Amino acid sequence: MSQINVGLIGFGTVGAGVVELLLNNRELIKDRVGAEIVLKKIADLDIVSDRGVEIDPGFLTTDALEIINDPEIDVIVELIGGYDQAMEYILMAMERGKHVITANKALIAKHGRILFETAEKYNVDIAFGAGVAGGIPIVRALREGLAANQIKAVLAILNGTSNYILTRMTEEGLPFNEALSIAKKLGYAEADPTLDIDGSDAAHKLTIIISLAFGRPFTYEDVYKEGINGVYPEDIRFAGEFGYCLKLLAIAREADGQIEARVHPAFVPLDHILANVNEAYNAVYVEGDFVGPTLFYGLGAGRRPTGSAVVSDLMDIARNHIKGITRRISPLSFARSPAKELTIKPMDQIITDYYFRFSAVDSPGVLSKISGILGAHNISIASVIQKRREANGSVPVVMLTHEARECDVRKSLELIDKLDIVTEKTVLFRVEKKTGI
Amino acid sequence: MSQINVGLIGFGTVGAGVVELLLNNRELIKDRVGAEIVLKKIADLDIVSDRGVEIDPGFLTTDALEIINDPEIDVIVELIGGYDQAMEYILMAMERGKHVITANKALIAKHGRILFETAEKYNVDIAFGAGVAGGIPIVRALREGLAANQIKAVLAILNGTSNYILTRMTEEGLPFNEALSIAKKLGYAEADPTLDIDGSDAAHKLTIIISLAFGRPFTYEDVYKEGINGVYPEDIRFAGEFGYCLKLLAIAREADGQIEARVHPAFVPLDHILANVNEAYNAVYVEGDFVGPTLFYGLGAGRRPTGSAVVSDLMDIARNHIKGITRRISPLSFARSPAKELTIKPMDQIITDYYFRFSAVDSPGVLSKISGILGAHNISIASVIQKRREANGSVPVVMLTHEARECDVRKSLELIDKLDIVTEKTVLFRVEKKTGI
Repeated sequence: MSQINVGLIGFGTVGAGVVELLLNNRELIKDRVGAEIVLKKIADLDIVSDRGVEIDPGFLTTDALEIINDPEIDVIVELIGGYDQAMEYILMAMERGKHVITANKALIAKHGRILFETAEKYNVDIAFGAGVAGGIPIVRALREGLAANQIKAVLAILNGTSNYILTRMTEEGLPFNEALSIAKKLGYAEADPTLDIDGSDAAHKLTIIISLAFGRPFTYEDVYKEGINGVYPEDIRFAGEFGYCLKLLAIAREADGQIEARVHPAFVPLDHILANVNEAYNAVYVEGDFVGPTLFYGLGAGRRPTGSAVVSDLMDIARNHIKGITRRISPLSFARSPAKELTIKPMDQIITDYYFRFSAVDSPGVLSKISGILGAHNISIASVIQKRREANGSVPVVMLTHEARECDVRKSLELIDKLDIVTEKTVLFRVEKKTGI
Repeated sequence: MSQINVGLIGFGTVGAGVVELLLNNRELIKDRVGAEIVLKKIADLDIVSDRGVEIDPGFLTTDALEIINDPEIDVIVELIGGYDQAMEYILMAMERGKHVITANKALIAKHGRILFETAEKYNVDIAFGAGVAGGIPIVRALREGLAANQIKAVLAILNGTSNYILTRMTEEGLPFNEALSIAKKLGYAEADPTLDIDGSDAAHKLTIIISLAFGRPFTYEDVYKEGINGVYPEDIRFAGEFGYCLKLLAIAREADGQIEARVHPAFVPLDHILANVNEAYNAVYVEGDFVGPTLFYGLGAGRRPTGSAVVSDLMDIARNHIKGITRRISPLSFARSPAKELTIKPMDQIITDYYFRFSAVDSPGVLSKISGILGAHNISIASVIQKRREANGSVPVVMLTHEARECDVRKSLELIDKLDIVTEKTVLFRVEKKTGI
């Protein structure tokens, strides 16, 4: 039986999950692949801590180069994260003819182009299924299962930490900070949760998704992002009154040769399948021109789900190895660059529905002044809720608009927030109406 | 640029979808695959009806053998359905070294073993992604994306017609026959809907899923089935009162070397992601030992979604073709038979929660008599709703049980239904509590 030798660089949470899976399901993997996937060496700066998996200390090294320079190793799995060091290791490994598997979404989102070009130059495979939505096989779905489709839209919940926090805020009415504390206590948020809650992590993943969907390596800077730190429980309550919930959405949508690429909290209709994706779960809703709407749901992070994704990529490379081939599918699943030139639509040009929450003094004529400014900027109101006076004397006026252009919205809110009758900065969320082809 | 030649046998709904997709997305498919997928010939008994796609009449033939015997054709797509004729064509094509793509779930579920053995003998690929859940790439997910996992459980909504009818019964409170009429009128049910509503279609698909999940070609006869024709609106209402909805579920679950394989209407908790799969949508919920719970959702039927599945299989074979390989993954995704010997658990041995609706005369002691018989068979009651007297003098007593064994349930219902106080046959549904690893 043929054999494929693997070196692991980075023995943290995901690394331990990969090792655990390779040990637990060894027979199954052999039966499925028809080859043995052999873990030869693991490099990590810390080779003493217990990871809860049984591993011969002889397998461990503090020197990643021992793995990269080992001619017997066919595949390296990069799980150290970060940019410079990871990049260097991956490029070195590819130069030495090794295939690479990485869960490093930030690196792919920033340096995808050079990574893919280097893989092509050295005729090796590079796989990154674990980088997008953890255990959910969405990279594979876009590259293969839905490959016959023009992708029209992707709406995704890609950050489990944010989704967990929003679920607590929705179900228990907690303010953001309290929900974040619970998430930290239960291990759903890291000590420094910045990249999760400011939308960066979701934007990294969306960058990879749009690259796959449209066949060009876009970069992280192309994606607009806002996080969930500006979400208040009252907006979630108002969302409910209008028939929506609030989710951190990653959105990609193609129209007229332009792509919208944005991450921000958004209103989602309660009867949309994404509205029921709660707790730390991720989900990717994809609309193809032939397949119609689809959804892929599961755990987007964690040792075992991410281990599942890494090992399924390993099995894929092993299946190529047995047949003596590489690069059966190119990383973005396009054998040649698509003819269609696609550009990212500037954020101020997007057109969508909006939710506004104005804080205004409780006096007659408030609504008329606000709606006057909106009307002058081609923004028409779909529905309004005006609440009773609050303790501080100001009243919230909340409304949903019909479709409006982002730049018009920004201009009008700038004017509205300068009005004497307006007491606080207006809160804005974008509204995703139920999409369907 | 290399080229792969395709012959289509069967130019019905799905066939037309395949042709439409190959025409519409020709450039995209070329860009992705790096080869041209060329439709050479289409065979159908009817070559005059308009299918809404532009096709040169010279491509059409009434003689399938013209395709099967054409040495230039690399792949045949079988879309005629049924058993004997389809089987004959597929075997002939494989003998001539042609790859086969089929959407014929019934054929795979009945004759999978011989089809897979023949494909192996002639070293060709056989793909059937369109046969399970239409456009949802679940075959691919089980074979590849989740391949590192031991599959613990599959709960699936696999029949769009039944799901549409149950959605109408739930949302509008309609009786079965009225909901069926609407489904027929709107094209969600065929003139003879038997195979859809009696559970056969879902059982065919479940047969394929358990074969993929466990690596052995099971057959249709191994799967227990009940359809939705015995579902009453009042049971759906009572389900709601207990916090459940009612779905036609296809269930596979492994425990202790045995597999449960069954299709029947079942109670699903309202907060389970499957509870929100409505209308004609399909969804497959898969639990792997590492990935945890996942869900794959989309349209399980229809010209365009099924076309998407067929063409993605075509692209897969084309990608092998370019690399000069075949059979990179065997049909059930096991390169060698798994060591684990698995048997199907007899239906009377399954253990689950139950819902009963008894029709009894309105007299004291009814509940005590019923619960006495249940208790004597180790069935304990979790909750009861007793309603007021109905017009005909009998009262419905509905209850949920704790876990019980099917054979005990059957025995006690047989005794209960013989009681003088019981006026009608007792209605039974199985209850799927929220599963999770």
